Amino acid sequence: MRYFEDVEVGSTAAFGSYDVTAEEIKEFGTKYDPQPFHTDEEAAADSFFGELVASGWHTMAMCMRMIAEQPEPLAALAGVEVEHIRWRKPVRPGDTLHLRTEVLDKQPSTKHGDRGYVTTAGEAVNGDDEVVTTFEVVALVKGRAYD
Amino acid sequence: MRYFEDVEVGSTAAFGSYDVTAEEIKEFGTKYDPQPFHTDEEAAADSFFGELVASGWHTMAMCMRMIAEQPEPLAALAGVEVEHIRWRKPVRPGDTLHLRTEVLDKQPSTKHGDRGYVTTAGEAVNGDDEVVTTFEVVALVKGRAYD
Repeated sequence: MRYFEDVEVGSTAAFGSYDVTAEEIKEFGTKYDPQPFHTDEEAAADSFFGELVASGWHTMAMCMRMIAEQPEPLAALAGVEVEHIRWRKPVRPGDTLHLRTEVLDKQPSTKHGDRGYVTTAGEAVNGDDEVVTTFEVVALVKGRAYD
Repeated sequence: MRYFEDVEVGSTAAFGSYDVTAEEIKEFGTKYDPQPFHTDEEAAADSFFGELVASGWHTMAMCMRMIAEQPEPLAALAGVEVEHIRWRKPVRPGDTLHLRTEVLDKQPSTKHGDRGYVTTAGEAVNGDDEVVTTFEVVALVKGRAYD
């Protein structure tokens, strides 16, 4: 676990591997984003995308899974905010997603000396090394004194 | 369906009702955000939150479901970007979420005359009328000439 003191601004990482399936795209789409291009191959063929694609919120959820399971996760207390989500390319069945991250900033909490805020930029890339989604997320992270 | 021409900047709406359950919180958490406060009541009791809470990404997915099923949905071609997600209060089992939205901006596409970009601010409120999450989302929306 990386505690607040361990976090180095400018540090980068690359991790994760998430196989995207049509079944999961349709399951997530049906439950949370019931637009035809997320729920049904035939309806998707007539859509803007011309094929079944993952909900952008599903892509973010897949990114979160990779973030939570990275080799050295942040000692996160809570997610706080997200900026600049850009859904740049479609995410399709058969894609394998990977993540690259860079720590952009860290700021100690002004109220509590045992924790601080860490801003991380993320980009999800597919198997052709195309950047499909980018975002920045701020997490509240434990300092060593917290535990 | 609201086409690009129908969208009025400054217009507001209130809609949706989503019952949050412990079962769904844990299902989403286990699949996409496996941190102890999203996956298990006992582990959550020892966490920053002191209880089971929904993943912020789950909250966004629930908001998306309400957006997709609103009485007069945008004729959306695709989601494009999201800014300023703020997870302000925990979302808990037993909460019922509702959405309030305001159209902040609309801009015709410079490349295609039959569509444009619509920026909408959203806030999710719980049954006690507490704002739990706020965000802004940009969608590419069909004009009437598109169909």
